[in-house]
Amino acid sequence: MDIEYKAFQLEITPEEIAQLIDHTKLNAWEGPEAIKNLCREAIQYNFYSVCLNSCYVSLAAETLQNTDIKVCSVVGFPLGAMESRSKAWETQQAVENGAHEIDMVINVGMLKSQQEKYVKADIEDVVSAADSALVKVIIETCYLTDEEKIKACELSKESGADFVKTSTGFGAYGAFPYDINIMRKIVGPNMGVKAAGGIKNFADAARAILANGNIIDPLKFRLGASAGINIINNMKWLSLSDNWVIDEIPCRLCPVRATTFGKMSESQYSYHKSRCHMCQYKQYNLFYD
Amino acid sequence: MDIEYKAFQLEITPEEIAQLIDHTKLNAWEGPEAIKNLCREAIQYNFYSVCLNSCYVSLAAETLQNTDIKVCSVVGFPLGAMESRSKAWETQQAVENGAHEIDMVINVGMLKSQQEKYVKADIEDVVSAADSALVKVIIETCYLTDEEKIKACELSKESGADFVKTSTGFGAYGAFPYDINIMRKIVGPNMGVKAAGGIKNFADAARAILANGNIIDPLKFRLGASAGINIINNMKWLSLSDNWVIDEIPCRLCPVRATTFGKMSESQYSYHKSRCHMCQYKQYNLFYD
Repeated sequence: MDIEYKAFQLEITPEEIAQLIDHTKLNAWEGPEAIKNLCREAIQYNFYSVCLNSCYVSLAAETLQNTDIKVCSVVGFPLGAMESRSKAWETQQAVENGAHEIDMVINVGMLKSQQEKYVKADIEDVVSAADSALVKVIIETCYLTDEEKIKACELSKESGADFVKTSTGFGAYGAFPYDINIMRKIVGPNMGVKAAGGIKNFADAARAILANGNIIDPLKFRLGASAGINIINNMKWLSLSDNWVIDEIPCRLCPVRATTFGKMSESQYSYHKSRCHMCQYKQYNLFYD
Repeated sequence: MDIEYKAFQLEITPEEIAQLIDHTKLNAWEGPEAIKNLCREAIQYNFYSVCLNSCYVSLAAETLQNTDIKVCSVVGFPLGAMESRSKAWETQQAVENGAHEIDMVINVGMLKSQQEKYVKADIEDVVSAADSALVKVIIETCYLTDEEKIKACELSKESGADFVKTSTGFGAYGAFPYDINIMRKIVGPNMGVKAAGGIKNFADAARAILANGNIIDPLKFRLGASAGINIINNMKWLSLSDNWVIDEIPCRLCPVRATTFGKMSESQYSYHKSRCHMCQYKQYNLFYD
C-alpha cells in the first residue's frame, strides 16, 4: 500500500462528517444518564447513530424516538469469544428492543486458528438474528496478520454482513489508514467499512476517510468515535491552518506505531516488529529499533 | 483497614494452592489448541478449574471428562453491560455445554447509578439460569468507590450468588488485598471470594490469601490467574529466601498504585488520588504527588 498523507485534500462539511459518525459510549462504568446525554448530543450534532452496550438499547430507542438517529448495539463485545448462539440471542434481543444496527465482534481466536467454518457460521447466526438490522463485523485488526484481515473481510462478506469494522476500541490499538485501505480493497465497493478506535480528532477522521477512498456515504463508510463532538469542533480551527499536515510522517499512519508488548500475543508483537523492519519508510522508524 | 504485610507467615503446600486456582485463558486471540493446552496444564497441576470464554465450554468439558477439574465460563464478559436476558441465555448455554461454574460481570454502570433493583435482577437472572452451577459475581473493583464495592457485595449476596470476584483482568487493575479484605468482611464467612487480575506470582497469591483471612478452601476462596504454573513454581525458590518480604511496603498492597489516568473515568481517578492523600501510609506514597 502507498501510505497516503494528503488529508489536507479532503473536502467535507461538518454536516457531512456528522452523518458518518456513530456517536459511541461503551465503557463499563457508563450509566443511564450518560447514555441519555449521548443521545442528546447525537440530536444536537445530527450524528448518524448512537453506539452503545446492549443493556442501553431500550433507553436509547426511547430517547431517540421521533428522530432519524439510529441505535447501534454492540454484540459479543469486546472479546468476540462468546458462544455463537448467545451472540445471536443478544442480537435478537437488541433488535426487539429497538436497535437498527448491530456491531458484532468476530471470533478472533477461531479466525487465527483457521476455523473458517466456525467463524462464518458465527457471523451468519448474527446476520440471521438481526433480521433487517444492519450488521457490522468487528475484525479487531490489532490482533491479526494481513492475511487474517483479508480472510476476516472475505468471510464477513460471504456471510451476508453489511460492514466490516476495524476495531472494538478495547484492543491493543484502533483504526489505522493502512488497515482501512486493505479492508476497502477486499470487500469491494458495495460493502461498508467502519473505522473505529482511537479516532480522537478531525485529523484522524480525515486520514480514515481518505484511506477508504473518500466515500462520503454513511451506508458505505462510518466512523466510530466517542470524540465525535471534538471531531466536528476541530474542523473549525483546523481550517485556519494546515500545520497539522506538515508534520505527517508515514509512521503516524501505520498501526505498528501503536503496538505494545503485553497487550497482544508474543507472535503478534513479533509480526508487527518484523513488518516495521521491512517497511519502505523504515528511515522514519520512530517506534522500534 | 490495617494493611497486612506478613505474607511470609503463610503456611500452604503447592498442592493446596493449586486447588484454589481457576486456571484462566480469556484473551480474544486464544484458539482451540491454546484451550486444550490449558486443560492439559490443569490436569498436570491439578488446578481446581479452567476459566475460559463461553465459546470454549464444550471443548473444555470434553477435554476434561473423567477428571475432577471444573469448567468455569465467563458471562457478559468483560464489560458487564450486556442486556440481562442475554447474560441469562449465555449462562444457560454454558451450563448445557458442560460449565460447572459461571463468572458473570455485574452491570457496573447501573451499580454506579444507584440502579440497585436492576443490578439485583441482573444477577438473579443469571443465578436462576445457572441452575446448580456455582455463580461468581465479578464486581470490577477498579471502577468502584468503597461504598459501591460494599453495595455490590451486598446485592450479590442477596441475589443468591455463591462468590464475589474482584476483577475481570481487563479493567484498569486487578485484585488487591485492600479490596479482598473489604469483600470478605461484607459477604461474611459463608460466601466465596475470588481474587483475580494481576496475580502473577506466589507473592501476589499469598497476599490475596492472607487478605481473605487465610481460608484454604476452594468453596470459600479462589484465585483467578493465567499465571497458575508460575505461582506453583515460585513457591520452590521463594521458600529458599524471604527477600521478597523485606521490601514490602504498604503501597504495593494498595489498588491505588495501579490507577492510571485514561483507563477509568475522571471522577474515579480523582477518588483514588484523594484516598492516597488521606492514607495513613502516605509517607511511602510512591505513586502520586
